[in-house]
Order: sequence, then structure tokens, then C-alpha cells
Amino acid sequence: MFDIGGVFISMRMAFVIPLLISTFLTLSPAQQVAVDMMPLPTEYKLGRGALKFDESFSVSLSGYKEDRLFRAVERLLTNASKQTGIPLQAKLTGRRMATLTVHTEHGSKPVEEPDEDESYSLEVDASGARLSAATPLGAMHGLQTFLQLIAAGPGGFHVPAISIHDRPRFSWRGLLIDVSRHFMPVEVLRRNLDGMEAVKLNVFHWHLSDDQGFRVESRKFPKLTGMGSDGLYYTQQQVRDLVTYARDRGIRVIPEFDMPGHTTSWFVGYPELSSGPGPYQIERRWGVFDPAIDPTRDHTYKFLDDFIGEMSKLFPDHYFHIGGDEVNGKQWAANGRIQSFMRQHGIENTQQLQTYFTHRLQKLVSKHHKAMVGWDEILSPDIPKAIVIQSWRGQDSLASAAQQGYGGILSSGYYVDLNWPAGRHYAVDPLSGAAAHLSRQEKQKIFGGEAAMWSEYVDPENVDSRIWPRTAAIAERLWSPENVTDPQSMYTRMYQLSWRLDFFALTHNTNYLPMLERIAAGRDAASLRTLADVVEPVKDYAREELALTPATQLTPLNRLVDAARPESETARLFSRTADQFLAGRCQDAALALELRALLENWRKVGRALEARSADSSLLREVAPVSGGLATIATAGIAALDAIGRQEPASAERLAAQAASIQAAQKPTSAQLLLPLAVPIQKLVEAGGNACSGR
Amino acid sequence: MFDIGGVFISMRMAFVIPLLISTFLTLSPAQQVAVDMMPLPTEYKLGRGALKFDESFSVSLSGYKEDRLFRAVERLLTNASKQTGIPLQAKLTGRRMATLTVHTEHGSKPVEEPDEDESYSLEVDASGARLSAATPLGAMHGLQTFLQLIAAGPGGFHVPAISIHDRPRFSWRGLLIDVSRHFMPVEVLRRNLDGMEAVKLNVFHWHLSDDQGFRVESRKFPKLTGMGSDGLYYTQQQVRDLVTYARDRGIRVIPEFDMPGHTTSWFVGYPELSSGPGPYQIERRWGVFDPAIDPTRDHTYKFLDDFIGEMSKLFPDHYFHIGGDEVNGKQWAANGRIQSFMRQHGIENTQQLQTYFTHRLQKLVSKHHKAMVGWDEILSPDIPKAIVIQSWRGQDSLASAAQQGYGGILSSGYYVDLNWPAGRHYAVDPLSGAAAHLSRQEKQKIFGGEAAMWSEYVDPENVDSRIWPRTAAIAERLWSPENVTDPQSMYTRMYQLSWRLDFFALTHNTNYLPMLERIAAGRDAASLRTLADVVEPVKDYAREELALTPATQLTPLNRLVDAARPESETARLFSRTADQFLAGRCQDAALALELRALLENWRKVGRALEARSADSSLLREVAPVSGGLATIATAGIAALDAIGRQEPASAERLAAQAASIQAAQKPTSAQLLLPLAVPIQKLVEAGGNACSGR
Repeated sequence: MFDIGGVFISMRMAFVIPLLISTFLTLSPAQQVAVDMMPLPTEYKLGRGALKFDESFSVSLSGYKEDRLFRAVERLLTNASKQTGIPLQAKLTGRRMATLTVHTEHGSKPVEEPDEDESYSLEVDASGARLSAATPLGAMHGLQTFLQLIAAGPGGFHVPAISIHDRPRFSWRGLLIDVSRHFMPVEVLRRNLDGMEAVKLNVFHWHLSDDQGFRVESRKFPKLTGMGSDGLYYTQQQVRDLVTYARDRGIRVIPEFDMPGHTTSWFVGYPELSSGPGPYQIERRWGVFDPAIDPTRDHTYKFLDDFIGEMSKLFPDHYFHIGGDEVNGKQWAANGRIQSFMRQHGIENTQQLQTYFTHRLQKLVSKHHKAMVGWDEILSPDIPKAIVIQSWRGQDSLASAAQQGYGGILSSGYYVDLNWPAGRHYAVDPLSGAAAHLSRQEKQKIFGGEAAMWSEYVDPENVDSRIWPRTAAIAERLWSPENVTDPQSMYTRMYQLSWRLDFFALTHNTNYLPMLERIAAGRDAASLRTLADVVEPVKDYAREELALTPATQLTPLNRLVDAARPESETARLFSRTADQFLAGRCQDAALALELRALLENWRKVGRALEARSADSSLLREVAPVSGGLATIATAGIAALDAIGRQEPASAERLAAQAASIQAAQKPTSAQLLLPLAVPIQKLVEAGGNACSGR
Repeated sequence: MFDIGGVFISMRMAFVIPLLISTFLTLSPAQQVAVDMMPLPTEYKLGRGALKFDESFSVSLSGYKEDRLFRAVERLLTNASKQTGIPLQAKLTGRRMATLTVHTEHGSKPVEEPDEDESYSLEVDASGARLSAATPLGAMHGLQTFLQLIAAGPGGFHVPAISIHDRPRFSWRGLLIDVSRHFMPVEVLRRNLDGMEAVKLNVFHWHLSDDQGFRVESRKFPKLTGMGSDGLYYTQQQVRDLVTYARDRGIRVIPEFDMPGHTTSWFVGYPELSSGPGPYQIERRWGVFDPAIDPTRDHTYKFLDDFIGEMSKLFPDHYFHIGGDEVNGKQWAANGRIQSFMRQHGIENTQQLQTYFTHRLQKLVSKHHKAMVGWDEILSPDIPKAIVIQSWRGQDSLASAAQQGYGGILSSGYYVDLNWPAGRHYAVDPLSGAAAHLSRQEKQKIFGGEAAMWSEYVDPENVDSRIWPRTAAIAERLWSPENVTDPQSMYTRMYQLSWRLDFFALTHNTNYLPMLERIAAGRDAASLRTLADVVEPVKDYAREELALTPATQLTPLNRLVDAARPESETARLFSRTADQFLAGRCQDAALALELRALLENWRKVGRALEARSADSSLLREVAPVSGGLATIATAGIAALDAIGRQEPASAERLAAQAASIQAAQKPTSAQLLLPLAVPIQKLVEAGGNACSGR
């Protein structure tokens, strides 16, 4: 069955009306034919029939071979077996016998680089599947596409006949995970690398140090983790293993050591690096802090030379990220020695002092044969063109860098910790805004983008739920053609992908219920789930503003705001149904019934949970939200009643209802939103005029 | 909040009416006060107030110490942190500072034996908790009880004030896992050992060989796994690690090598051991097969001497299980050489030949310093009293063995693969039936029992869902006093335990939705879940009878029957509500509404899923069950209508409705039951008479 713009077409129909289908399904990606691939390939064309997928499935490899390819095939077999539940007598076979043949032209570089060929072609018909690629990178991408195409059909599992020619739009498609603010054990990273592979992301940006923890073993400077990590860090062997694990999935690993700010954890063991008097403790709070590396002492550069030397051996990638963001300059301004250094060297302000530091740092990075990457702040006159700017500020900043000849990657608009809806991330294009007006050559300096998972409010239990499935929308933006932009198609395919990711051991779906059970203390968790399904954590940085006491690294992340999904699929679908109902001028009785049934259940559950607030501290803060849900559901029901009676409401009554919805959805210290308030308000307004009998 | 027989008492109420509470909560376990412990302790008394559980929680160890205890405390901290979501700065501290002090008198034996002291005492009040035990075994059990007592309350997490003196009723409390019919990787066993620890089970019975696979590396006989395992086996190092892992949790590991039948997999590599001509292939089908070890050749005993010698070093436990069940004797009867051996030795039939084999085997086991355990069939005159009989036949068989002086353990009634409701297992007592009439001394020969997870229809994905949570009911039967028998209390506590087990990485809850998503192909899995929640796999061996084609080891376990839970909690609760409604002579309008809402939803979902049957082969077989659900829901709604109208139905109409319910619930090749049919039939009957206006 294929979902074509919301219309289901079964395989049987496809057989009965082949002509229509073959016309219909050869649409270009821009026309958003929704087969369940994500990211959508550059070009594809559905054919007739399908390849059976059963326990006899087998694969052959030809052309260039390496161990990585064998492991990729093993992984395909394992994951296909998990996804379908069919035990595969996993086998690699000769080309003539194989269900899927994989041909690879030649190897990729020993250390992956951004400009490598990642393209592949995949041809599937009833007799078999043929995947061919220039390099193992392309072959691995093609295997993931093949996996996504395996679907349940009336005759068992199958892969639809299809012809695909695919290559990425951008060469740098990344995911940043901050492991400093909350440490993420290796298994968390491994399963997220599996997720990245599934959506063809190819850069894992490992944010390894920040004020709240230094997370990688240095043998030269053991006090970095010895005093700055609470014992929560990666050994060098773990790093090597993870780099191998990533390379096996066509993923580069770029370490970030954020400097000269965001460095408190360094100073716990090495206070002499800092610009302040010390001593230092690991920072537990969130925010921008004063401690900064002293950019004026030779000792600093000696230390960094040794440190970067050590780390550049550990991380093979050509790029090395030095952070460079959010230096407030306060320690520099307060230090007499630094002030006198600035005067001596004609450095006028702390921003210029950072530039001085960045230039010296760049030389060290370059000495160790790496190219420097840093946030917007590192861009300064005369810095070599080999550096890459990662922008948290936006496309304008990137465009300006590109015009000056600097490479750039976009992260503004891709911060998944801000709890935006997937559709909002999806709409952000690295080449939009000022970047849209760049010359072709300048555009080529914009390499791609990175989703960023900052970890103030995530831990190993809920981090997957912030990354997935929304990061798949960003991955599609970075891989698929520019004109693939239909959010409806994206959402359909994203939710298809989402449950398939369960079979990659990601926990974004599976940890949801246990977290709710914990809050409900195991009693009537079903009601709590109904509530949780329609709330969202507050957006952007509102969580900080609404907190009764500021959260720290030691604050439990066991509340409803931590379990609730960033985007409520239930609310999104209700909103769609309400829009449909309104578009039909409220005439569709079946839709009215459907909306009413949902609203009545929310009213009931909202009231029931409100009454349980005394049970536990975790439920207590949810009570006002439950009450709010009941209130807006009541308003929605009243609106449907008014529509049913065809009686326009008075302006006063409408205003009162709007005010009550407004009040009910106002975020409290529970830090939760009720996105249903928007469609319900629309129903109230319709009850007041458009759909009532005037 | 405590749940006392279905009535919720909040901490606040407990504070306001302390006198009532202190009277009310000192009931003996037999009176089934439902605090959330499982198994219920031998004696306990709730006090007033509670101990706060927060990030400052700490533990001290005193008295006898060993590494295992430190690791048990670490595990407590990890699991308490997972269960509450509170990050613990895990610390072991001095006794004066500790929230929980743990005192252990002395060590346990280097290899755990069944008669060891497992008792402990736990005292909790607002100022702290004190756990004391004779041995590390008792201390570990006490830590699990403490973990179960941590609950969410209005002021945050707490442990209620309580005084507990606890010891097991039976010394042998086991779980058998069959890893031959479907191989279970080490991580599956590890998480199930965690679950066993949580409910104080102390014997892991590892069913390592059978017709369908030989699962442990033998260095002396490498072809056992080399040809008899499909490469799916445990290395000796993995075995040693798992034995250590189990010992860390107070769990003995008893290997079973089933002989002389159930041995096809041995013969693939060593056909000379068999009584037939060979050659042999790994058996893929289920059932009782002819191949059996040749008990007449010296070569056999030489082989077994070497093999048992090797395995007895690998498995330190005092007991060694040799199986001995289900020998059909056909290969022996068909072999002329064996027949002539029998005549020479005056062996009259194949049963006597098995006895001859068992006696010689027992000497080999004994030579290697182990006590033999076997199934009922090994019991024979003159076999030494040191052996232990494991009974799949029942209490009568055990009682007869005990009277002859043999030790025994019960497995009849504890086969979790038969999909019985937990309450049915719970009602089986090793000392009931004929065993109830044994003398005190004879009763002591009945050591306990074992739940048995035979693996025809489980694989790593769904095996936890067959073991948990129902095995907790068996664990309670084996640990708690004989008079702890209230199923209502058991069910309440079992479901509390069930979600807590999520934090031990068990997958019985978390794999449910992905399995349903797979069947639904990710489209409207919510409806499928509604159906899955009210169906049950057929019981006992009915799955075999209903299969269109016999299942084998290679059959995918990806159908609704594989995902559906053995016992529908939703159906159980509906049945309870219906009984309540009927007990009130159908007068309670709120209950009528609740029942109606559920029935209407089932009718809707049943019809919707029936219509989707063409989508996929996995959904197609579900269609008749969906239709059946709609049919019985419709009958239930009609019954409520009749009750509402107070009009008695005609006998003809009642008979017609009963017939339609009967037809709708008739199991098909989907192998599913509709347990809702029973309470709905009751409603129909009530609509016909008791609750209608005659």
C-alpha cells in the first residue's frame, strides 16, 4: 500500500489500474509522492509489481570490497529481520543467486572527506534488486533506502518495483550531541549513530567539553577528566571504537573542544589556564559564565599545542572544532595583567582579544594538520580561508562568510532542544535568506548544516525523544532536492520512519510509557498518557523563565515536561481535522462527531487527573494543565453545540470563551503548552459566526 | 499513597487519621494489605510516617563484606535512580551518615546451596532504614524489597515506615529458559536474571540442549555446537560470565542436558551416539521425536563421562540436570543390536532400558561430584536418594517421590508458555493435592518449584512478555506464606511490579508497541492496539491444533498472536466492572455508561480493522477476530439496551445472541481468543432476566 498525498492505494488497486498508476507514480519528488523513504531520493520512479521479501532473501557483493561493506550487509540483514520479524538465514551469496546485488566501483578515502561521492542507484523489480554505487558510502546509503522500502503487503513483505538515482544536496549533514551538560554513555551515542545512518546523516559533531564537564580522556592532561568530569567520560579506546563504529556507517566524527569560554571544567584541574583567580568547581548551572582561557600567556599555547596534538591523533577527521562562542570577556576585563597585555599589543576590546586567541589557536590546529571549525564568533579579518564557520546566528551570517570565501554550515533553525515542530525545522533551508542571493560559487561554500542537541534538559532516558523523529526532517532538508518541501508528506513519512527506528534500538518511542508510569506511580497511566499526548514542553528558552528554581545538572528530569514529546502528533491531527471541518463550513456531521468524541474524552481525563493531584509531587504540578485541558475541551464542546444549534454567539460570550481558553493555556511552572488551544479557539470563533446560521 | 484493597489512602489522610491507619495497616499478610511488595514478605507491619528518598540518599555496609555486596549496593543505586529519575551521586558512606545501613553477619557458601539462610530484616522510619541479614543472600533480597518500597508521594519520593521480617517458604525458586528451540542471546538472559532478582527467584535452570539445537561450547566435543547449533551457542567464557552475573544476584545456575531423548542436535555431529542409522539434521519442527542416545554401548558412557566432566567444571552448582523426559523408545525398538542387548540383560521394555541408562548416568554425574536432577521419568526403584525429581506431571507425582525419600520440585502448573492467566499459576501450590497429606518430614523433601519458559513460540523479541509479569505470581507462591492467596491483591501488585521492571531493561512492555506497529505497518497502530489489548493467544497446546501449517524453528513470530499478551488486563478489568454492575442488579448508571463506552469503542475499532484486512498478510488473519470483537461488542450494547428498557428478551433471542457470541469467539487460525466474550455473555443473560423488569 502506498500513501499518495493522504490517499491510500493498495497493491491490488495498482494491479487493476496499472495505467493510472504508472502515470501517477512517475511524478517528480517535488510533487511529493509519498512512498515511505526519508530522506526522499533525488529522482525515483515507481514501477509495476514488487519483489517478495521472505526468509530466502540473500545479498551479493561485487566490484570493490572491504570489511565495512560486509558489515553493512550484515547490518541490513539484522535490521530487515528485526523490522519484519522474519528470521533470515543471513547469507551472502553469488551474484546469480542473490535477491539483492550490490556493486561498488571503488573505495572511499581512508579518512572520509566532505567532497566524496555518496551517490547510488537502486533498481528493484519482481525478479530482484540491483544497487550500484561509486563508493562504499553510496552503497551504504542505498542499503538504508532498500531497508526503508521493505513493507508489509497483502502477500507478505515486499519491496515495490522502483528505480532510484540518488545523491545528497549538501555534503555536510550533521548532528551535534552535547555530552558535557549531561553525559551520554557510549550506547546512547551508538544507537543515535544508527539513527543517523538510517536518515543518511554523515557528520557526528561531538561536543566534548563545556563548563559542566570535560568528557574525553587526555593522557597528557589527566586532571581534565580526573577533576572535571565526575568520572563520566570516554576513554581513548571508547573514542577509537566509536570513530570506527561511525565510519562503518559512513559518518565522520568531529570533536568540539569549546574555547576560550565554556571552559570551567578545564580549570578545575588546571586553574593556571584561566583568566581568573580560581579555584574552580564543575559548573552545575546553565547559562553563559565568566571563566575563560587566558589568551595572553605562553603557557596557554604550550598546553593547547600538546592537547590538540594528542586529540588530533585520536580523532582522524580533517576538521577540528574549537567552539569559540559566547565569551563574555568579564574575566579578561577584571584581570590587570591581561588588561596591560591588551594595551601593550594595541588590542582595544575583549572581542579583539578573542580574535587574537582564535588566530593563535588556528595556527596550532593547522600545525596538527587539521582545519578549524568554530561558531560565528571566530570569523574575523585575516583568518585563513580554510576554516569553517558553523552558524547559530543564521543564513545571513553564513552568506556573509561565504562572500568572504569561508566555508559554512548552518545550525540556526536546527536546534532540536528548542522543542520546535518538525515542520518549522523543515522549512529552514541553508540556502534561503541572504544565502539565496549568493553566486553559484559562493553557494558552494555553504556545505550543509547540523541539527544540534544541547543537553541542559535531556539525559540518556529522554535524549532520543528530542532528537527523533524530528531530526529526520532536518536530514531530509539537507539531503533531498530543494523543492521537496511539502510538510504533509514529510510528516507522514517521518512517522513511518519513527516506529521503524524502534528496531534500531532507539528509545524515543519505548521510553515514553515508562516515564509516564513513573509519574503516575503505575496507577491509571492511561489517563496520564492521554494528557501527555496533547501537551508540549514550552519552546525556545521559556523553560528557564518559568522555572520556580533554576534547574541544574543535578535536577531530576522525571517530570511530564521531560516525558512529553516536543511536538504533539495528536494535537496536529486534531487541528487538521478541525480545519477540514471548518473548510466544509461545519456541514460534515461525521467530522463533528469525531471532534466531539475527542473533546469529551479530554474533558473527562482532564478532570480525573486534576483530582489526582494530591497523589504525588510529580502529578501535582500537572493538575493545572489537566484542568486547563478540561477547560478548553469544554469550550470546544460548547462551540460544537453552538454550531449544531446554528445560533451565533454574542460578542461578549465569544470574548469570554477566548479569555478562558487564553487563561487555560497560559504556561505555568509545569512548563507545558496545550497546543489544542489553537484549533479549539478556531472552533469557538466558527461557532460565533462562519458556521452559525447568520 | 497506599492502595488498600482498592481504596486509595493518601499520605495526607494518613496524617489526619493516624489512629485508624495504625490499626488498619498492621494486618497480617494473610489479610492482604496491598503495599507494593512482590513477593509479599513473611511478616511486616507498616508504621507512621516515611523516609524521604532524594538525591542525598546514601548507603553503608557493615559486618561481613564482599565484592558482591558492594556491587549489589551499586545496583540498588542505579536502579533506584532509574526508577525515580533522580540522579544519585552514588555513594557508600559511614554508618552514621547513611540513609540505609546494611549489616551482614557472615558469608554464604562459595557455591550457593539450597539450604542457605536467605532471611533478612528491614526497619524503615522517618530517620533512616536498617537492613540486616545473616548472609549476602538475605542482604540482596532486602535491597530488592527496599527498592520496591520507594514510591512517589505528595512530598516527593519516599519509603513508608515499615518493619519487615522475611524469609522464603521454599528454598528452590526457579525459572527454566529453553534456549534450544529458540536461541536467546546472553543479554536476554542477563535482563531476565535481573527480573528474577527483583522477585527473589534463586535458580536459573538453563535448558541448553534439545532436538532443535545444542547451545554450549564443548572443547572436548566441538561438533556439538559446530554442527548442532547454527552457530548460535554460548562460549565457555560467556557461561562463566553468566554464572558470575547470576551469583551476584543470589541466583544458582543449573544446566540441563536433556538425555537420552530430545538429543537430535547432538547426533548431527556425533551420529555414533544415536540408536538409529542417521545421518541427522537439526530438528526444525516441534514435538517428540524418535532419536535417542544408544544406552547399550560403552562408547556412549565414555563420551558422557568426558562430557559431564567438562560441563561439571564449567557449571559450579551442586546440581546437574539430565532431563530424561519424553523418550518414545522407537529407535530402541527398531534397533536389532539394542533389542538383543535388552534380551541379554533381561530388560523387558524400553522404559526399563531408560532406567538402565539413568542409573549408569547417575553414577557418572555422581563421579563428577554432582547431584542429578531429572524430570518425573527418571524416578525408578533403587536410584539413589540424592537425586531430585522435577515434576511436569503434578503434585501427586511429587508426593509419591517424597514418600520414597526423593527431593522434588514442581513445574506442573508453572509452564508460562501455556498462556494461562497469572491467577491460575498463583493458585498452584507445591504442597497442595496429594502433597498436602504428607508428613512434615516428607513435605521438607519438596524443595520448591520452577516456572518453565519453553521456547517453541518465543524469540528474543517477545520472550520477556511470556515470562513477565506472570512469573512474579509464581515467585510469590514460592516465597510468601502459604496463606497469601488473594488474587486481587496479587494482580494489583503484579501490575505495579510490571512497569517497574521496565527499569531493569526487560522488554515485556516496551516491545509490545513496536510489534503492533510492524503488523499495522505503522498506519493506525492505535486501533490495532485496542484490539491487541483484548485478545489472548490460545491456551495450552491449542496453537498446534489451529495452525494451517505446522510451525517450525524458522517460522516468523511476527503475528498478533506473538505480540498479544498471555492475559488481557483490559478484559480482566472489564469483567470485574461487569460483575460489579451485575452484583448491583444493573442499577448503577455510571457503571452502565462506562461499560457502554468501552463496548462502543470496541465495536468501532473491530469494524475498522476488519475493513483493513486487505492491507497486509499480517492484518488479514486478524480480520475475523476484529469482526468477532465487533460482533460481541454489539451483543453487549444490545444487552445494555435491553437492561435499560427493562424488557426481558425471549428465550429464542437469548439463544441466538449466545450462539452469535459463541461463533464470534471461536478461535481460528489466527490462534487468538476473545476473553471479553465471557463477561458479555453474562450481560446478555442479565438483560434476559435478572436485570430486566420481570
